[in-house]
Amino acid sequence: MKNTFGTNFKITIFGESHGDMIGCVIDGLSAGIKLNENYIKHYLHMRKPKGTISTSRQEMDQIHYICGYFNGYTTGTPLTILIKNENTNSQDYEKTKSILRPSHADYSAYLKYHGFQDYRGGGHFSGRITAPLVVAGSIARQILETKGILIGSHLLQVKNYKDELLSEDEAILRTQLKTLNSDNFPVLDQQLKQEMISCIKQSASVGDSVGGMIETAIVNLPKGIGEPFFASIESVLSALLFSIPAVKGVSFGLGFDFAKYYGSEVNDEFHLQQGTIKTKTNNNGGINGGISNGMPIKLQCVIKPTASIYKPQNSVNIQTKENTQLQIQGRHDPAIVQRARVVVDSVVAIGLLDLLSQRYGYEWMRED
Amino acid sequence: MKNTFGTNFKITIFGESHGDMIGCVIDGLSAGIKLNENYIKHYLHMRKPKGTISTSRQEMDQIHYICGYFNGYTTGTPLTILIKNENTNSQDYEKTKSILRPSHADYSAYLKYHGFQDYRGGGHFSGRITAPLVVAGSIARQILETKGILIGSHLLQVKNYKDELLSEDEAILRTQLKTLNSDNFPVLDQQLKQEMISCIKQSASVGDSVGGMIETAIVNLPKGIGEPFFASIESVLSALLFSIPAVKGVSFGLGFDFAKYYGSEVNDEFHLQQGTIKTKTNNNGGINGGISNGMPIKLQCVIKPTASIYKPQNSVNIQTKENTQLQIQGRHDPAIVQRARVVVDSVVAIGLLDLLSQRYGYEWMRED
Amino acid sequence: MKNTFGTNFKITIFGESHGDMIGCVIDGLSAGIKLNENYIKHYLHMRKPKGTISTSRQEMDQIHYICGYFNGYTTGTPLTILIKNENTNSQDYEKTKSILRPSHADYSAYLKYHGFQDYRGGGHFSGRITAPLVVAGSIARQILETKGILIGSHLLQVKNYKDELLSEDEAILRTQLKTLNSDNFPVLDQQLKQEMISCIKQSASVGDSVGGMIETAIVNLPKGIGEPFFASIESVLSALLFSIPAVKGVSFGLGFDFAKYYGSEVNDEFHLQQGTIKTKTNNNGGINGGISNGMPIKLQCVIKPTASIYKPQNSVNIQTKENTQLQIQGRHDPAIVQRARVVVDSVVAIGLLDLLSQRYGYEWMRED
Amino acid sequence: MKNTFGTNFKITIFGESHGDMIGCVIDGLSAGIKLNENYIKHYLHMRKPKGTISTSRQEMDQIHYICGYFNGYTTGTPLTILIKNENTNSQDYEKTKSILRPSHADYSAYLKYHGFQDYRGGGHFSGRITAPLVVAGSIARQILETKGILIGSHLLQVKNYKDELLSEDEAILRTQLKTLNSDNFPVLDQQLKQEMISCIKQSASVGDSVGGMIETAIVNLPKGIGEPFFASIESVLSALLFSIPAVKGVSFGLGFDFAKYYGSEVNDEFHLQQGTIKTKTNNNGGINGGISNGMPIKLQCVIKPTASIYKPQNSVNIQTKENTQLQIQGRHDPAIVQRARVVVDSVVAIGLLDLLSQRYGYEWMRED
Repeated sequence: MKNTFGTNFKITIFGESHGDMIGCVIDGLSAGIKLNENYIKHYLHMRKPKGTISTSRQEMDQIHYICGYFNGYTTGTPLTILIKNENTNSQDYEKTKSILRPSHADYSAYLKYHGFQDYRGGGHFSGRITAPLVVAGSIARQILETKGILIGSHLLQVKNYKDELLSEDEAILRTQLKTLNSDNFPVLDQQLKQEMISCIKQSASVGDSVGGMIETAIVNLPKGIGEPFFASIESVLSALLFSIPAVKGVSFGLGFDFAKYYGSEVNDEFHLQQGTIKTKTNNNGGINGGISNGMPIKLQCVIKPTASIYKPQNSVNIQTKENTQLQIQGRHDPAIVQRARVVVDSVVAIGLLDLLSQRYGYEWMRED
Repeated sequence: MKNTFGTNFKITIFGESHGDMIGCVIDGLSAGIKLNENYIKHYLHMRKPKGTISTSRQEMDQIHYICGYFNGYTTGTPLTILIKNENTNSQDYEKTKSILRPSHADYSAYLKYHGFQDYRGGGHFSGRITAPLVVAGSIARQILETKGILIGSHLLQVKNYKDELLSEDEAILRTQLKTLNSDNFPVLDQQLKQEMISCIKQSASVGDSVGGMIETAIVNLPKGIGEPFFASIESVLSALLFSIPAVKGVSFGLGFDFAKYYGSEVNDEFHLQQGTIKTKTNNNGGINGGISNGMPIKLQCVIKPTASIYKPQNSVNIQTKENTQLQIQGRHDPAIVQRARVVVDSVVAIGLLDLLSQRYGYEWMRED
Repeated sequence: MKNTFGTNFKITIFGESHGDMIGCVIDGLSAGIKLNENYIKHYLHMRKPKGTISTSRQEMDQIHYICGYFNGYTTGTPLTILIKNENTNSQDYEKTKSILRPSHADYSAYLKYHGFQDYRGGGHFSGRITAPLVVAGSIARQILETKGILIGSHLLQVKNYKDELLSEDEAILRTQLKTLNSDNFPVLDQQLKQEMISCIKQSASVGDSVGGMIETAIVNLPKGIGEPFFASIESVLSALLFSIPAVKGVSFGLGFDFAKYYGSEVNDEFHLQQGTIKTKTNNNGGINGGISNGMPIKLQCVIKPTASIYKPQNSVNIQTKENTQLQIQGRHDPAIVQRARVVVDSVVAIGLLDLLSQRYGYEWMRED
Repeated sequence: MKNTFGTNFKITIFGESHGDMIGCVIDGLSAGIKLNENYIKHYLHMRKPKGTISTSRQEMDQIHYICGYFNGYTTGTPLTILIKNENTNSQDYEKTKSILRPSHADYSAYLKYHGFQDYRGGGHFSGRITAPLVVAGSIARQILETKGILIGSHLLQVKNYKDELLSEDEAILRTQLKTLNSDNFPVLDQQLKQEMISCIKQSASVGDSVGGMIETAIVNLPKGIGEPFFASIESVLSALLFSIPAVKGVSFGLGFDFAKYYGSEVNDEFHLQQGTIKTKTNNNGGINGGISNGMPIKLQCVIKPTASIYKPQNSVNIQTKENTQLQIQGRHDPAIVQRARVVVDSVVAIGLLDLLSQRYGYEWMRED
């Protein structure tokens, strides 16, 4: 797999934080899909750092469509996009390039690439590489929306601030997702939202960082999607979600809380609702045996606190092999959870479109 | 992917709970590996139901080596094993075959396979299919052990009973894993172990079930294994772990607890330990940027309570499209977490051997 | 890839010539396909050795359906079949097991597997492993036939005996294919057929062997199937065809004869035929840019003479590292081209169903 | 597969003939490989049209290294290259864009992409897309050369002009390949070379085109590379070779001539040569059972005459659905066989490096 994901809908990502360009190749789109470029821009913009709760590195993030897109429609051949890196301060990294940044990939990358990796700004490990993921994901997502499939996320937790869960009612959930999808800091409880922002600002003010939890839902995914084993919805989505830097946990439905209940408390009983089979509860997050059962898909993931903090840290100089102190330079996000949520939605869209393509074929993408 | 997993070390699983045989094809083994059949039997036996805390279905689980294994050594061509299903009571399923079992895959499978799936005993969705996974995994695991790589798990939680975490000290951890690997009900705290067993028995006595949490560690994995994105250690292992029926959450290191900390509290600072670079803490579970950093790999997964319970449940008859009550027949486990742990270790071994093969090639498997 | 082929319709083959069983796993079939077992038997029987022009090893070739097939229909989960090896004379191979058989895989297998391979009867390299390919291919082929897609082959050449080419007229071609598909020694020219058979018998009488050329056609393949590059129809089919032991050349349309013509002589001009766009000639064998254009697909492959001959040959003893003479024992085919043709048709069916599944999805297989 | 090829060494190609840029992503390179940019330029230049026997479209073909290449060494992360399209005359294609060009992919692409494909200059089907293949291939090729593995080709046939075969003597063959690799029109017989060039010029003078045959050899490929079935050397290389536009046949060793011989005439007998096991003849082209046996690999492929000819041709207007005549505009090659040979060598290098990586792992690439 490495940098290519997918069976039928396939993406290949490339680039480094301080290289000239980053980008991706999207293969497996059917021909004749009219792309809404503003839709893609909207989500790419949502990923961009904003205000004092983000890094001050400002990139234009203009999307260059290199091929596979002609006269406003996909051609069916590989769609490749490029995004320039323009606002790089590589000298920030020169000074401390031999000192391993705690909880970053500096050391593990050194072990794998023997020091030949591009260390500037985290190189290929940078969150910057998620920009092409958002482009690919937003193309997938708009195709899904033409089929009535809606994806969205909110911040379920930042530090000790916990938002309410997404609604169990599908109609309300759909409205919630639409609202969240146009909110740069998506929280259901508006009071809590302000507290979370304050928390991040406070953390930034002392040179520290925070992480958080994201809850994601998908409504109207066709029933019967996914496979029993290695391509279960959970397997496909978790493989993608764990590709996002900083994600350290993924769960579905009740997730880790399942450990504390009796089966009789959490089994999702079936009943008929206006002639349709539904479950009364949705503790399994819309997935049984790896396959969608028609209920909304519900999943959570955790984003660890940004590894880059300004507080001095103990570390090792990889060249001199000596213990040392590190004072991180550069521009960093005190929290990325609010930016990561759009990457989460994007990779979810990529994974689902791939599974759907296996069932319905690529021609299905463009059919009404 | 579907039923085949892997890039270089590849497994294909097949079979149904009440069919004649289940099995798997293991491709990508180098030639000339001397298999320890007792080692494989040991772990396959560990997966078997035992005592009153498990189903009373008793299978011999004899492994038939069909090909790829000759005169005690692997041949390098596909190694295929078969296991017979012998102790099946399919009539248990006839009576209620049209009534959807809550939290099972009955309904989602119906949606995907249009009623043509083998419904007996859960068919291809049965935990029974994990037996071939254990065989394949135990082959991978013994190869890893010849390289000094050790895998093991314990039950971190059953209901409200929570075991202590695995040791942060690598030498102690190694000893813990060895002990756990010969324990059918692996818990660090022996008092707690008895309480967990009592809890499961009590649950069984009222026709209910419980789930649990498993903590797994890998020691001595070579440094620099894994890829930045879609083949990160987390991506590969989570895709495999979510292939195990009942797993609904997977996390690494601190996992979901990352959400509540400051970066300065959980960053893993580096220091030199007798000339070797180590992290002081291991909150990232031995993985940065998807790649091993030399610290023990630590991961957790949650197993939901067994979906089959004897308590009456509300459900729907898929043939008559009517609400009904279901009284599950057949033999079932009041808890599978103690059996699932060996499946967890097995798929971890499969995933790691695949990643290692990509770096070192298949010839490496047999080299000293 | 190794022993698994396919993206959406996936097959995994396993087994050795003198092991207990050989078989394959077929993954990616939709649920609810009614299998015609006699159809599969017909083609498996066609692969069997017959009369004096074949080996005297007689196998029952009974197909054991292990899973994925329930009450006469596919379940949608992996369909696994096994075939027993019963008529093995392994002692024929003991005597000369250290002497490398010319043009067999003995030496290259030794180099790859370091002597651990199963040498009996060619082990995993035996033509015997093509039996599961015929089963998988015959399942694919019958699905294709329900869509009106017909595949068939004849012996275009044996030694200097050359059959006429398949008809350029699609209606006649369809009739030819149907006739050929029920003929164990398929040649268009009946006089020539007898001469080819005599040639093989004569060759057998002096302990020698012959090869031959097979011409294959596919009619009614949907237009627009295949991909521009690595999954061009030519790429997919050639990868499969070169997996058949003894195939050493594959060509499409005019094939190697293209080298001697001017473009103006061989370009396929377009014209309208009763409102449909057709090419006047079909030198490109129905494929342009890797994609089907609606004309019949035409391809050829060459089968080298059976490597096993009874005439004494010079060789080397791999154990003693000495030059020696080899007198091959055992039972062998003086020609396999007439048996190989059904393997050719089978792998063509496998490759085309995989490509079709990518376009239309797996659900398409069972739709009317 | 579509536009991504490979298991461990993976390439993804993209672009259209008249788009802004074409390029490829190369994934699976180990870190720390010092690239010889001149080496890559040499082969990219060899692919360029030259003199009156080629199209007059002149592209600079400057390679832009976007990522994965840092301070002169590979980083181990995806190496992406871009090449600009600069000398495009898209208006040549506007006039006749609705008239299907015989033996081009216009019609099959229309059927697959429903008219949304980029038609200018053949779009994604253009031979122009082979430029990135040559870059990727030249990177693979130089890695192979550091291991002593040499690849090279000559024109075996153009019309009725047939060059002698490459030498059976490995030392002479190595010298031949080196000479051919610096020759823009590689023919062993220098008299014949002039006749072939004259033939192409004559063909061009009357608005016609010619094809040809290429013979390729690989010396010093490690023994034991390749797999018995779907990843046989023949399968892997043919899948790649048939991805080159205009290739319609691929064969190994004696190829299609095998059909006319007795086994006793063409079996490759073994003997000891200074202590090493060799075959006396090499009719199997260095491959038995899909696996290298230590003899030079020998293969042939046929390139059909350039489909674009200036002579008027009959065709159909896809918009008006009427028969019409076509007079092709634009700039075209009267023969591409002399340019295609470097693409052949390039994809051979890609396929072999992928197979070698599976055996030895990616770290092997950079080891001495």
